[in-house]
Order: sequence, then structure tokens, then C-alpha cells
Amino acid sequence: MSVDTIVDMTRSLPLVECCSPLAISTLSSTEAAELESLFKALADRHRLRILNVLLQAGEAVCVCEFQPTLGISQPTVSHHLKQLVEAGILDREKRGTYAYYRLKPGVLDRIGGLLAEPGALVAA
Amino acid sequence: MSVDTIVDMTRSLPLVECCSPLAISTLSSTEAAELESLFKALADRHRLRILNVLLQAGEAVCVCEFQPTLGISQPTVSHHLKQLVEAGILDREKRGTYAYYRLKPGVLDRIGGLLAEPGALVAA
Repeated sequence: MSVDTIVDMTRSLPLVECCSPLAISTLSSTEAAELESLFKALADRHRLRILNVLLQAGEAVCVCEFQPTLGISQPTVSHHLKQLVEAGILDREKRGTYAYYRLKPGVLDRIGGLLAEPGALVAA
Repeated sequence: MSVDTIVDMTRSLPLVECCSPLAISTLSSTEAAELESLFKALADRHRLRILNVLLQAGEAVCVCEFQPTLGISQPTVSHHLKQLVEAGILDREKRGTYAYYRLKPGVLDRIGGLLAEPGALVAA
């Protein structure tokens, strides 16, 4: 694991580790603000398409591949990738000239699980 | 079921019925914009606390009960409740003087399921 990756993972820990399921207990203002940040990271059409590309790929994708696939400018791609890394949703790894991005294992299942209703939590 | 409820349900159908899981196929721009709208409806600390109150209650809650619980003004409460109804997440029913709000059955599990990763989809 590169130093670059470790730095990114450390930086992204607070948000991705923030939240307990919405149904479990009464949300404090702080917890509600943390959940808001997490869902804001998802609530963008470009970031959703980036996640879709990564889910379809099933492996790390070069930063250079998003621009032609999504038809948005390289600075816009980089901006959205940075937000997803900071939210703790993606890991970034430098390989030679390019950065590669991958979904943190299980992160989308975990975020989806934050919305689980009481019946689903009991059954799980 | 009151006419009021039916009108609300009809109005909210397009957004709640919009989306297929993020992992299933390549998202079009239109599909990405629909998912963006759905996650934007969640990405607000007040709306998350409203959902938390409804999950804890497990039944319809009077509009009059949110203001003291959440400590925000009645117009702010009403604004956020309206957005959640329009997103297809809540049902609204008029009972006498007050409107009551409840989660649409299974709606949060469904939204969480949109984020399911390929392994989880196969296992489901």
C-alpha cells in the first residue's frame, strides 16, 4: 500500500465511519449533520455516474478513463473524485503518471444499510 | 383513503418509482439526474431527523409534533415535509385540523437497495 493511499484513507476515515442506522436511536443534531454530509456526497448526477462506472468495472479505474466515458471536463471529474475520496467512499492510488480510483469494499452496502427499516434490521 | 391522500400519492409516484439499482446497468444522464433528486431529498439534516422521528414512532405523526421535537419553526417543518412527500418518501393524510405523515411502507429499504453492490444483489 502506497503512502499516498494511506494518507487518503486516513483523511477519509471520519465521514465514512460516522453514522449509525437511521432507525436505531434518536439522531442528535451532530449525527444528523454527519448523515447529511454523507448523502450529499451521493446526491450529484456526476458522482452517481462515477460510482456506476466503478461498480460496472469491478476494479480500480484510471482517472483518465472517466472523462471520455462521462463527457465532462477533466477538472470536473477530478473535483467529484476528490469529494468521493473525502467522503470515504473511494480509495485513490497513484500508479505511475495516473491516479486510480476504486470503491472502498462494501461501502455502498454500508451506506444503504444506514437506511434499513426496523424489520430489515431484525431480520439481518 | 381520503382524496387528499390519493392526490399526494399520485403526485409523488414519478420520483419514488424512478430508479433502478446503481450496479445493474450503465446509468443514462436522465437516470443519474433522477437518482440525484432522490438522494437530495435525503441529504438534509432536518429531513433526516424527520425520518428518524417517523422510524422511531412506527406510525403516522401529526405535523404538530415535529416542531417541538426538532426545535425548528413550523414553516421549516412544513417545507421539509412537503419535499419528502414530493420525493415519494412520505404519505400525507389529513385528520381533522392536522395533517399526519408516515413513511411509505418499505421506501427506505428500497432506496437503500439502490446502492446494493453486485454481490449483495446476487445474494438477495
